[in-house]
Amino acid sequence: MAAETAAIIVDWGTTSLRATLVDQSGNGKEIIETPQGISSLNKGDHEEVLMTALAPWLSTHGALPIAALGMITSRNGWIEVPYVACPAGPAELAAGSLRKSLPNGSDLVFLPGLTDPSRRPFPDVMRGEEIQVAGHGLADDATIIIPGTHSKWAKVKTGRIDSFQTFVTGEIFALLLNNSFIARGATQPPVDDPEAYRRGLEEAKSSAAMLSLLFSARTGGLAGRLTTDQLRSYVHGLLIGQEFRQAREDGWYSEGDEATIVGNDGLNDLYKIAATVFDLKINLGADDVMIRGALDVMRRSLL
Amino acid sequence: MAAETAAIIVDWGTTSLRATLVDQSGNGKEIIETPQGISSLNKGDHEEVLMTALAPWLSTHGALPIAALGMITSRNGWIEVPYVACPAGPAELAAGSLRKSLPNGSDLVFLPGLTDPSRRPFPDVMRGEEIQVAGHGLADDATIIIPGTHSKWAKVKTGRIDSFQTFVTGEIFALLLNNSFIARGATQPPVDDPEAYRRGLEEAKSSAAMLSLLFSARTGGLAGRLTTDQLRSYVHGLLIGQEFRQAREDGWYSEGDEATIVGNDGLNDLYKIAATVFDLKINLGADDVMIRGALDVMRRSLL
Repeated sequence: MAAETAAIIVDWGTTSLRATLVDQSGNGKEIIETPQGISSLNKGDHEEVLMTALAPWLSTHGALPIAALGMITSRNGWIEVPYVACPAGPAELAAGSLRKSLPNGSDLVFLPGLTDPSRRPFPDVMRGEEIQVAGHGLADDATIIIPGTHSKWAKVKTGRIDSFQTFVTGEIFALLLNNSFIARGATQPPVDDPEAYRRGLEEAKSSAAMLSLLFSARTGGLAGRLTTDQLRSYVHGLLIGQEFRQAREDGWYSEGDEATIVGNDGLNDLYKIAATVFDLKINLGADDVMIRGALDVMRRSLL
Repeated sequence: MAAETAAIIVDWGTTSLRATLVDQSGNGKEIIETPQGISSLNKGDHEEVLMTALAPWLSTHGALPIAALGMITSRNGWIEVPYVACPAGPAELAAGSLRKSLPNGSDLVFLPGLTDPSRRPFPDVMRGEEIQVAGHGLADDATIIIPGTHSKWAKVKTGRIDSFQTFVTGEIFALLLNNSFIARGATQPPVDDPEAYRRGLEEAKSSAAMLSLLFSARTGGLAGRLTTDQLRSYVHGLLIGQEFRQAREDGWYSEGDEATIVGNDGLNDLYKIAATVFDLKINLGADDVMIRGALDVMRRSLL
């Protein structure tokens, strides 16, 4: 039934609500985006916010199946949906979903996050990325990279997400750029410098001493060998390079392997360059994996 | 001559000016501290600020030799004193000092910083810590640790500081605590938890994946295995532990070695605990090493 009608996919995160109306084939037709992320909402507000945001579509199309994913299903969101444990594919994610009827008769499906209980010292978690990986497809065993503020590296094995690991690379980059000694030295507005980025990657490849390497962003300037224009890209290279180095040391790939980048957080080009420096071959996933994954899991949940 | 009179040591950093009046034996008699760090001053203001701050002493004692060290001798300070290169001891630091006569006839000696040109990718630098190490004494070969916002590890060899390396541990800690996802989870005001600190150290000892380990500050809370009270100390343990791990990997010590902590930035107890976890025996330097080092280098400069 759900498979025959259009649907709405709501990617509801900390700072925004982004809804996509999709046709029967899963193609996006329209988008509504509001700044009503969960950090701006109180408990009890969510249903009204959602109904108001989606009103134009619901008044035109009537009741539609709606999938909600992202931080909206976290402890600080609308309904906390427990994490599903790895290994998991669309069937397990669907089984872990929660359903709710909306005032107009629409089925709202809260998609769960994923946890990897094998990760040390504590189980790792994601909310949203697992839907992107599912949307990419799990038919082939693969190493998946989802670049972002908190990047994820995941293994797909025999049709399921087998394991994953988080790297807080993007967050550390933002902290350094905006609040550290590096902020005081970098050109504003920021400048991208591909050569400095690559240099940062190479330095990260040659040294594991990350806490020391970061100081080179300062000493390079003092030595007249890094300009203020180069600083931002150099530091980005150091950090993404450390992510690739640490991911390799933790067994996510070996030199010469292939990996697939899924998602599109504006970092894919930088990650592709990093992969060449670390001798990892990259395939790029499609852009609409989140929609496809959410639709798949939602439909299974509504069967 | 200078050795027979009292002197003033001015530790003049980014956020404060701290002057110590010392007697002929190098014992501190009085302290004057003002918030007139170099970040609050314009070029051309420094002499007047110094004369005003020291006026009570200068009017009592007349002209006195004055040593100035710290960021005051950096590019953004009063006079940029070029870095002296490792290996260097008090003689080399004295030879690299710059002297200036003040309006009341006092000799002002600007002490230089130290650079390690062997460090990759760029020469490392310090301003102030080398004076502390010199004040500690260079008679015995040793590994020296100077905890701080930018911690230093140094080797003393045949009477000179042979080499050193910076770790930006304290700065990353402050960034994470004040501006990151960790800030949102930690108890305010901060709580110290020795057990959580030690746990962070142990986790850092068992994993090099620093960008991933930092996320455990979040997943530990989600798993109900880290309380908001424990978060701060746990993260501090992760970071100081990573410093010890990276310092070991970069050859600053091997398990079972001895090292000496010099300086007192409020971190010495935490570094002692870290050293036990990483099987490094710690000796503690005296508290007044900065004064002794500055006096020694200044006197040599004024000979």
